[in-house]
Amino acid sequence: MLLPELADIQAAHSRIKSFIHNTPVMKSQQLNELFDCELYFKCENFQKVGAFKFRGATNAVLLMSPAEKLKGVVTHSSGNHAAALALAARMNGIKANIVMPENAPVVKKNAVSGYGAEITFCKPTLQAREEATRQIMTDTGATLIHPYDNFNVICGQGTSALELLNEKSDLEIVIAPVGGGGLLSGTSVLVKGIRKTVQVIGAEPLNANDAFLSFTTGKLTPSVNPKTCADGLLTSLSELTFSIIRKNVDKILTVREDSILECMLLVWERMKIIIEPSSATVLAVVKENPDLFRGKKIGLIISGGNVDFGKLPF
Amino acid sequence: MLLPELADIQAAHSRIKSFIHNTPVMKSQQLNELFDCELYFKCENFQKVGAFKFRGATNAVLLMSPAEKLKGVVTHSSGNHAAALALAARMNGIKANIVMPENAPVVKKNAVSGYGAEITFCKPTLQAREEATRQIMTDTGATLIHPYDNFNVICGQGTSALELLNEKSDLEIVIAPVGGGGLLSGTSVLVKGIRKTVQVIGAEPLNANDAFLSFTTGKLTPSVNPKTCADGLLTSLSELTFSIIRKNVDKILTVREDSILECMLLVWERMKIIIEPSSATVLAVVKENPDLFRGKKIGLIISGGNVDFGKLPF
Repeated sequence: MLLPELADIQAAHSRIKSFIHNTPVMKSQQLNELFDCELYFKCENFQKVGAFKFRGATNAVLLMSPAEKLKGVVTHSSGNHAAALALAARMNGIKANIVMPENAPVVKKNAVSGYGAEITFCKPTLQAREEATRQIMTDTGATLIHPYDNFNVICGQGTSALELLNEKSDLEIVIAPVGGGGLLSGTSVLVKGIRKTVQVIGAEPLNANDAFLSFTTGKLTPSVNPKTCADGLLTSLSELTFSIIRKNVDKILTVREDSILECMLLVWERMKIIIEPSSATVLAVVKENPDLFRGKKIGLIISGGNVDFGKLPF
Repeated sequence: MLLPELADIQAAHSRIKSFIHNTPVMKSQQLNELFDCELYFKCENFQKVGAFKFRGATNAVLLMSPAEKLKGVVTHSSGNHAAALALAARMNGIKANIVMPENAPVVKKNAVSGYGAEITFCKPTLQAREEATRQIMTDTGATLIHPYDNFNVICGQGTSALELLNEKSDLEIVIAPVGGGGLLSGTSVLVKGIRKTVQVIGAEPLNANDAFLSFTTGKLTPSVNPKTCADGLLTSLSELTFSIIRKNVDKILTVREDSILECMLLVWERMKIIIEPSSATVLAVVKENPDLFRGKKIGLIISGGNVDFGKLPF
């Protein structure tokens, strides 16, 4: 299996950088005091479509051949990758067809249709999503751009950590959320490629802990119908992302639902920025493990800011 | 009555600039497309204490004499000025006593006590607040730093527009919220002092429209027990702010409650930043009056981001 290397992510960044935002790295004195460490938030909530996913989707679309572009792209996604692929396709004049679970957040459905993509709804199971996707590929010849089980997507996702380390080169730890593992894979390859001594940690909801189990047992162990408020992290690792994560990640730490919500609200209140529950897992890791992080310089990849305000749990 | 001039605000900025954040000016392509104009958001929600009020409070505290500083400061405020004065006082080693209405948002009460100020609660009427404040002044000799009826506070509030015009010099219109009128007064003096042709507009809730009425009739007309979701704009103009506003402001435009909430949510969703309802009035003015703003370059003073998430109206 071909695994991405540092040079692949650097090449992806050169390729996509005129299409994406170089998102800000934010700090909060209040949160630093509260957690007794130095936190650097890489704010992908300010990325186009409100999530890091635009990086990977753009890299994948830019690498398609002219013949492939004519037939369009298709994917299945719980939301942010869908919006990302829809916009990346539109910016390149390509047709996009998105398979979405019928229970996806309204804000994400609206975003996808707003970017001009066609939506095909399906049951909220991996099997239903894969079947609907295959059918569209058969009917149209569209190229599948998988949300994370895709070399080029993973390379695109790693570009966020590249910008983070460019701006703050003396980080000791980088924490990224893990769902399907695209972001954590790209992040880990980039960070270890730049400096082996920087720790890379995956943040995962306890209620969707397939990455933790797979990492610990050494055997790919997908979640079955997980339930977590971190709706971007319901998916499970693929063989590809599992291989990259085993090779490059130091630790997967799981976090409780109450910690995720508490940390999301903490960021809203203290930093005045909207982050989605999936993003709050990285801060929840710091909150639940104070002894691991005290006094450290820590980069947190804030994955996105797409929240369904009609469904707030408080 | 001595009214502030451009030089007073420039001097205030030199005085306070090492204490405050030079807050970012943000843009949103989506909102520009939606409203068909160019919007520049001066983000005082990222200011210390989460509101522009820290500018005025800091300017006032720095101008106190050593003898005055020994006796401390006192004020009454619905919240943001309270937190601002508490922090400005603490940063200068001064004791602060804050009179707050008992129905002030929890997040604002916590902020004030978190900054080490003493809080005296009172009934939510202007009369009760003024009486409690007078009592404290009599008992302690503390200096009253009024939230807006204060020359030095007004000069501090005008420094936000100074930074905005420094960064974006070709604005055609600047819109600021108006409650007691401190922010709008300072903003208008600064803007008209820099360039007379730039329009200055006050944004006011229809449900607390004393500035609109006073401005239109030429006679100071305080609101009586107004009710609006924009909890920072419940106060009424003073003689001082009314005089400044009559001289320098082009227009006061009122906005409906539903527009305020819609625009607040729009900023949360599209820009991924937390703004409070009072701040959303400036965007609501644009939304309710498309013909006035089409194609224009508009500066919006986003006054703060202190929201009580336990009391969201949606």
